[in-house]
Amino acid sequence: MFVSASVTCFFAPKLGKPRNSGSLGVGFTIDKGVKVELVDKGFLFNGRDVEIPTLMHVVNSLGYDGGIKVESDLPLGCGFGLSGAIALATALEINEKLGLNRSLFQIADLAHEAEVLNRTGLGDVTTQCHGGFVVRKVASCPSRCLVDRYLWNVEVEFLIMGEIETDEILGGNLKSLYEIGRESMKEFLRRPTMKNLFRVSKDFSIKTGFADDEIIDVIEAVESRGGYASMMMIGRGVFAVGGGLDEFKGMHVKSKVVACGIRL
Amino acid sequence: MFVSASVTCFFAPKLGKPRNSGSLGVGFTIDKGVKVELVDKGFLFNGRDVEIPTLMHVVNSLGYDGGIKVESDLPLGCGFGLSGAIALATALEINEKLGLNRSLFQIADLAHEAEVLNRTGLGDVTTQCHGGFVVRKVASCPSRCLVDRYLWNVEVEFLIMGEIETDEILGGNLKSLYEIGRESMKEFLRRPTMKNLFRVSKDFSIKTGFADDEIIDVIEAVESRGGYASMMMIGRGVFAVGGGLDEFKGMHVKSKVVACGIRL
Repeated sequence: MFVSASVTCFFAPKLGKPRNSGSLGVGFTIDKGVKVELVDKGFLFNGRDVEIPTLMHVVNSLGYDGGIKVESDLPLGCGFGLSGAIALATALEINEKLGLNRSLFQIADLAHEAEVLNRTGLGDVTTQCHGGFVVRKVASCPSRCLVDRYLWNVEVEFLIMGEIETDEILGGNLKSLYEIGRESMKEFLRRPTMKNLFRVSKDFSIKTGFADDEIIDVIEAVESRGGYASMMMIGRGVFAVGGGLDEFKGMHVKSKVVACGIRL
Repeated sequence: MFVSASVTCFFAPKLGKPRNSGSLGVGFTIDKGVKVELVDKGFLFNGRDVEIPTLMHVVNSLGYDGGIKVESDLPLGCGFGLSGAIALATALEINEKLGLNRSLFQIADLAHEAEVLNRTGLGDVTTQCHGGFVVRKVASCPSRCLVDRYLWNVEVEFLIMGEIETDEILGGNLKSLYEIGRESMKEFLRRPTMKNLFRVSKDFSIKTGFADDEIIDVIEAVESRGGYASMMMIGRGVFAVGGGLDEFKGMHVKSKVVACGIRL
């Protein structure tokens, strides 16, 4: 089972009970992500023993007593929504192999619950259930989240300059963040183009204080060459369309946007 | 732009204004479908000049004045939902290449309108927007249709024994058809397994009178070998999981179910 990485452009988070927690916002799926297989025992990420809380939550909830092998070209903790991807792919794979016959949205709500309880994400699983540039119009669990999608066919470059733990952000005061995110959504929907998405996302990263000077420098370097860029939410990284990231130090990734977040 | 074929297991149709027309039911997407490209002029299906009404509707609605080239491994008019796939893929491709920036559901509603006006389909476009085994819970246009999905990872065989024009069925009295379809939906949701889906679908094909003796013979031959089968809605064909179609005369197709109806 393969689930795409999900990159968040901007978001408006709301925390409560898992079903009523989530975020408005825009995120997109790419052709890199995580591949999950059931194995006899152990929990492996790219061959190394790991403790991924969202993975453990779905494994325990579904009563699965074997092991899980996760493979990915992408790093954990850098804004690729891997905690959600791993939870969703693991739960889908267990559902299929154990013949549990749960629906996609039942499984997705469980993966989302794992994210909410661990403060690792509030919208990635919803984005991954759909695909393309996903507009989440309701801050809720995947089964209740109204979405629309834009299928702009582009390649995106990523520059990863460090880690930010999502739970540090989502553990803080979310009220002003919600207001800034909601304004960003209105701004985006007024003119739903890729150019405007990047403009709104960059403004969001500045107004929220997430973007430091180094991040803003990288974004502006891309813009000065005619490209679009903004900050990955939530990771210390920049995503860009139209080139311009090569000169900067960090981990470089390129990936195409895909219309679908799940591959059987 | 690639859009999957959509095979309908059972359905409950409702016709009114395009936005309020649609069908409850279950359908699934497969890894065969249609590939659409914009070309200078002409409308070609596998190299031959064609007049596909749903295609013309979206071309005219979007103000596109060039040509369209469609390629497919599947035949028209045989229950693969190609009229919807062609309308959706064409509209998405025009949207992308002309930079119209319409959302997926705006485009899908247009493709659905093309289907409703031509009586060629009432649920295929919605199924194709999602993917896997798609449960359409509301008889409406794609943007308003609540869905859930089952991602059973199976290969399906098809036996095509002839054509049925969908507009002949959808031009008739739909009231009793709606009632039978709604009952089928309740039956399926009581126990949402693949086995029960085939059982409910077969019952639907018999109660509605769509399945003739020859179709029922084929279905029962598959069942007698431990497989599952039912009739393609709406085409003179059978789909099966678990083999058993080889001995029958007709066009044979095999394809895997895919989680996603659209590929960029």
